[in-house]
Amino acid sequence: MENIKSYVQQHKDRFINELIELLKIPSVSADTAYSQDVIDTAEAVKVSLSKAGCDFVEICDTPGYPIIYGEKTIDPNLPTVLVYGHYDVQPPDPMELWTSPPFEPVIKTTDIHPEGAIFARGACDDKGQMYMHVKALEYMVQSNTLPCNVKFMIEGEEEVGSASLAWFVERNQEKLKNDVILISDTGMISNQQPSITTGLRGLSYVEVEVTGPNRDLHSGLYGGAVANPINILAKMIASLHDEDNHITIPGFYDKVQELSAEERAEMAKAPFSLEKYKNALNIADVYGEKGYVTNERNSIRPTLDVNGIWGGYQGEGAKTVIASKAFAKISMRLVPNQDWHEITELFTKHFTNIAPAGVTVKVTPHHGGQGYVTPIDSIGYQAANKAYTETFGVPAIPVRSGGSIPIVSLFEKELKSKTILMGFGLDSDAIHSPNEHFGIFNYLKGIETIPLFYKYFVELSK
Amino acid sequence: MENIKSYVQQHKDRFINELIELLKIPSVSADTAYSQDVIDTAEAVKVSLSKAGCDFVEICDTPGYPIIYGEKTIDPNLPTVLVYGHYDVQPPDPMELWTSPPFEPVIKTTDIHPEGAIFARGACDDKGQMYMHVKALEYMVQSNTLPCNVKFMIEGEEEVGSASLAWFVERNQEKLKNDVILISDTGMISNQQPSITTGLRGLSYVEVEVTGPNRDLHSGLYGGAVANPINILAKMIASLHDEDNHITIPGFYDKVQELSAEERAEMAKAPFSLEKYKNALNIADVYGEKGYVTNERNSIRPTLDVNGIWGGYQGEGAKTVIASKAFAKISMRLVPNQDWHEITELFTKHFTNIAPAGVTVKVTPHHGGQGYVTPIDSIGYQAANKAYTETFGVPAIPVRSGGSIPIVSLFEKELKSKTILMGFGLDSDAIHSPNEHFGIFNYLKGIETIPLFYKYFVELSK
Repeated sequence: MENIKSYVQQHKDRFINELIELLKIPSVSADTAYSQDVIDTAEAVKVSLSKAGCDFVEICDTPGYPIIYGEKTIDPNLPTVLVYGHYDVQPPDPMELWTSPPFEPVIKTTDIHPEGAIFARGACDDKGQMYMHVKALEYMVQSNTLPCNVKFMIEGEEEVGSASLAWFVERNQEKLKNDVILISDTGMISNQQPSITTGLRGLSYVEVEVTGPNRDLHSGLYGGAVANPINILAKMIASLHDEDNHITIPGFYDKVQELSAEERAEMAKAPFSLEKYKNALNIADVYGEKGYVTNERNSIRPTLDVNGIWGGYQGEGAKTVIASKAFAKISMRLVPNQDWHEITELFTKHFTNIAPAGVTVKVTPHHGGQGYVTPIDSIGYQAANKAYTETFGVPAIPVRSGGSIPIVSLFEKELKSKTILMGFGLDSDAIHSPNEHFGIFNYLKGIETIPLFYKYFVELSK
Repeated sequence: MENIKSYVQQHKDRFINELIELLKIPSVSADTAYSQDVIDTAEAVKVSLSKAGCDFVEICDTPGYPIIYGEKTIDPNLPTVLVYGHYDVQPPDPMELWTSPPFEPVIKTTDIHPEGAIFARGACDDKGQMYMHVKALEYMVQSNTLPCNVKFMIEGEEEVGSASLAWFVERNQEKLKNDVILISDTGMISNQQPSITTGLRGLSYVEVEVTGPNRDLHSGLYGGAVANPINILAKMIASLHDEDNHITIPGFYDKVQELSAEERAEMAKAPFSLEKYKNALNIADVYGEKGYVTNERNSIRPTLDVNGIWGGYQGEGAKTVIASKAFAKISMRLVPNQDWHEITELFTKHFTNIAPAGVTVKVTPHHGGQGYVTPIDSIGYQAANKAYTETFGVPAIPVRSGGSIPIVSLFEKELKSKTILMGFGLDSDAIHSPNEHFGIFNYLKGIETIPLFYKYFVELSK
């Protein structure tokens, strides 16, 4: 029976083409204009799981987009791995910055990916990384090496808060029973240095609306005499950070888990070049909370960023108007022990309080999730580390990520099991940005590494 | 020979229908998508001037949109009135707030306009007010009561800075020679209380672009570690006003003409109800520069307002992105003695200086104009006041307007003559806003009043 390396070599063109077909469907969950595409993608994922060897696959209806559930049970007495992933993607805009259409996948080489990378929205986040697990299952079934039971749960609302997933998990705890949850929706340090994400930030995402006069006004006749909602919104947003870039919302930091000097010293060992970082982004300097370095600011510290702002005249030329309303989308990344519901309340209360009398403010929570930290002494972590060590030749480094996978803490609460984040993406893959891509090397390496996780997880569980 | 009152009564339906036809053409000068409509409007204005009785009318090409010039000379030894107006209009957006389509004029009654008002973009600003002069000429020619020579100069770029008009005036000083310039592009206090605008604010309009990282970034992986262009833009905009709402740009107030206590006391006599003002706008309170009241803030004081802002994700739902760029359109209203070129330079210098190292800033001047004050002891002002007094039954009150007609100071410089601003609009006409309208009463009253200006101007000139 051929081993995984040769199986991947033999089938890699098909593996790549199958992923490309999946990437062609624009499954943008944030925009209802794409809703049929999202549903078509769910169907495609279902078919792929059946072909890969699941005994049972179903499309489960939810209040939102469907969840695909699949399973293969070889022996009830053996452990069960639950694989989670998502088939929805971020909106592609700004379209004009894509060098090739976001839903017409093409393979191009880059300095980091000399073997080529697939350029398309969702290539890495998360269709590519999710599909590695489908192909890993195919191999284990074909080679009869699947050492335990496996369940798949692939959702379509991860990019908009996973509301339906929470609904689904709460109602299917028995069906989803497992010994470990395996997710590939994160990154690693480099193609030479694998890493395992042990911490995630939480998230609170809100939309704010500032209303001034009941209609747009002529800025000459009213300018200077009434509160201009755009100026006021700018002033309110600016006031959310102080001169040291600390967030000014009362109580915001009360529950923040501060790391010890030892832990921070440990983090500082991860390879990082500030010059390369600045050059990659073409910025003269970094910017952030006083008292912390870049790798701390984007992982162990909470943040507040405006993700979108709009109001007034945005067309060609000039319009001398005072807009009646101004809007912004604001997200806060949270760290362990901050509760996203509580932070959302603190934000809403504060933002409403700081509005001057001349305007009214509306805050609409979009979604959120809790932060998460996984222990590195768990069987799951050890199994993942052995798998990486075998395929990459070096052990994985544990890292705290600044990103959020809101449902990870939900899984622990509802399913009472730990999640292992085996990411194969790179920071340079431009997820959530134009020209998102996923290295062929990374895709195939993931397919190669995953079966080893199953192998070692079962061995260590004995 | 019938008099003006009965002539207007006899022809008012035609006067209204002719204006409605003109309002149907969407002559939005700020948006090139409408360029053919702007040119069609120029042609329609030319035809209307010929029909009204001009001896000579021509469409004059310019680097931008054409200027319509028309004249009727009855005796070179008599005075000449130069009528200025504009046939271009503001962009109609936000479209969704219009109760009827902006370019499908309809007549509706309002509390202020029981006889009805024409609702359409440009109804008041300035097609309606400009067309009053065309119909007034028609009457004077038909009734053989035109007491002097008249010239018309109607442009198509007033809403975008009148760049071509300046070019045209500088090259046609002899052709445009006149004794007084008459413009109806302002408002009056109410339909019971006419007023004449004696002061206008200047304008500097700029667009700013703040660029951070070279691409949109995932707010989880980069949030808190790099300068977010939207947060930075908000912070920079907020810093342009201090806690007393004084503008913080160094040198901004250096040349501002301060009014004496007497002048401010005189201004305070104009009828004004703060409660009605707040209720009309549905705001809990006014907002502006400390030490000045509403009617001063919007007329004799310079201001800075953001007219538009945009950046990042503005679509449905949520996108956790840090945008590469953020933009704003900012206008400053200027008062006499402030030079708009100088203020634009001061803004550009200051705004660039306050940008942190993590971003780059680009400031693009759009257009501007100087402020203006007209003396109330001039023949032109006296003639206008007598005309209003005769048709309204009460004398006009001189008021300083917060608006800008950038070319008025240009006229004085190039043509060496004073401008009289005989406005017939009302603040409630919602110019530059959705549901702009112009009262039938105001439109017909204007046609009635204008010939009296000619009569008294010639009498007082003897």
